[in-house]
Amino acid sequence: MTSRVVALPERAITHRVRVGYGDTDQAGIVHHSVYLRWAEAARVEYLRHYGLDYRRFELDQRLALPVVDAHLRYRSPARFDDQIELVTWVGELSRAKVRFDCRVECEGRHLTDIEITLCCIKLPEAKIVSMPEMMWRACRGEGAGA
Amino acid sequence: MTSRVVALPERAITHRVRVGYGDTDQAGIVHHSVYLRWAEAARVEYLRHYGLDYRRFELDQRLALPVVDAHLRYRSPARFDDQIELVTWVGELSRAKVRFDCRVECEGRHLTDIEITLCCIKLPEAKIVSMPEMMWRACRGEGAGA
Amino acid sequence: MTSRVVALPERAITHRVRVGYGDTDQAGIVHHSVYLRWAEAARVEYLRHYGLDYRRFELDQRLALPVVDAHLRYRSPARFDDQIELVTWVGELSRAKVRFDCRVECEGRHLTDIEITLCCIKLPEAKIVSMPEMMWRACRGEGAGA
Amino acid sequence: MTSRVVALPERAITHRVRVGYGDTDQAGIVHHSVYLRWAEAARVEYLRHYGLDYRRFELDQRLALPVVDAHLRYRSPARFDDQIELVTWVGELSRAKVRFDCRVECEGRHLTDIEITLCCIKLPEAKIVSMPEMMWRACRGEGAGA
Repeated sequence: MTSRVVALPERAITHRVRVGYGDTDQAGIVHHSVYLRWAEAARVEYLRHYGLDYRRFELDQRLALPVVDAHLRYRSPARFDDQIELVTWVGELSRAKVRFDCRVECEGRHLTDIEITLCCIKLPEAKIVSMPEMMWRACRGEGAGA
Repeated sequence: MTSRVVALPERAITHRVRVGYGDTDQAGIVHHSVYLRWAEAARVEYLRHYGLDYRRFELDQRLALPVVDAHLRYRSPARFDDQIELVTWVGELSRAKVRFDCRVECEGRHLTDIEITLCCIKLPEAKIVSMPEMMWRACRGEGAGA
Repeated sequence: MTSRVVALPERAITHRVRVGYGDTDQAGIVHHSVYLRWAEAARVEYLRHYGLDYRRFELDQRLALPVVDAHLRYRSPARFDDQIELVTWVGELSRAKVRFDCRVECEGRHLTDIEITLCCIKLPEAKIVSMPEMMWRACRGEGAGA
Repeated sequence: MTSRVVALPERAITHRVRVGYGDTDQAGIVHHSVYLRWAEAARVEYLRHYGLDYRRFELDQRLALPVVDAHLRYRSPARFDDQIELVTWVGELSRAKVRFDCRVECEGRHLTDIEITLCCIKLPEAKIVSMPEMMWRACRGEGAGA
């Protein structure tokens, strides 16, 4: 296990969502909080693509991966019924933390940049621990789907 | 414990919320799903008013009160920054089920009628059971706050 | 234009969603409010399947289709990462109103029944009006995709 | 109008919210996306406290204040029924942009730090413009409530 990996954009996966009516607000654009839900779904699909079933991970291990930092830069708005693409990769990886980077696009238009940092903790005491090998490999894009 | 009570509107409590920007959709009105969150908060306050701390209830008992039926009639829309009142009472009560009724108002205008039925279940097997005495009394509006 | 149609289940379409982490609550199941968002997405796909682009409809016409009634019966819970199917059809149709019925399933398990009634109104005064022919035909499942 | 102001923590206001059941996820803590809705409500209350009604502002002016950057650092989780305090002030202010800073607390425990940057734009073309005097004064905490 290498101690730190920086940026694996070549392992990016693309997750697609359709903007729902309830995702918009009265300004006629997608509410800024919705991007966190989309990015979360994209992370689950990234891990699945590289061989890790996050549902099973939480059930089998006494571990969790809570969000410890979220940074979003909004460049251009999304609108109702838009087909959104979330290009998602690991931007930084250390033994206990992983940062997922996400470029949100719509028909080639660059909408948003999202960086979400998760930290591996042991439950129930919430102690920071090293990720298990299977999670580390999935984050590196070395899993079954690679 | 009486087996069934029908309608206790005289025990109604009023819960107030302010409409957030993100509660609206592109039609410029509160999205219809938001009322379920408001009604949920109003139920928690009803129970607290009548002496039951729902957080403690879930922690102490191996019981839960999931929603089994929800019926909402939308008459007039709410808008951003409106001050909403949720007048909330028990509309029907039997040993294992309770229906909370809620009339949503804004400055005297009648917006929505909500009926939410909850069923008492034992965890983890989700078997329907009679409510404990403390929950029954709170639903009847007979608790500490009465 | 016939004045009333009752139930077109043979025209049902199936819309699929994946349960997100943020769709769950601390009971470990999907929060009851989430089904309204899913049913909304399923209606948009029903209309698209039968030739009506709801985004264009709102932009081109000065009409809207707000929800006036929602009835949900929760039978069995959905959980994180479940693949949900929303089988959606028109349960009742009159000149100004349409009720979409939806049976929510997960791997053959019947989770929820949803009935959502929408009413056609003219903006900005919110006057109830007859649906335009194109909406009526899409609701009847007679559109381009039929 | 000074061209730039940095940090007005002495003008902070405190906005209180109660954690709803639906704000939690299956990890038993408040979902990380919820903080964006809370911070939004706190900003509206900050502006109201200093004399600006944001609803009126949007209606009267052809201006909007979309979020262009959001940075959240999660230190400790919030749980169902917690009483949350959002201590909110202007962290940076220039002619077209304002950054609201927010420290989220629960009974003295420091939960989250939030920085939200908004940019003043003219509708419908979304051109960046200087804030009107009334918004600038409210952001500076110089309005009626000061």
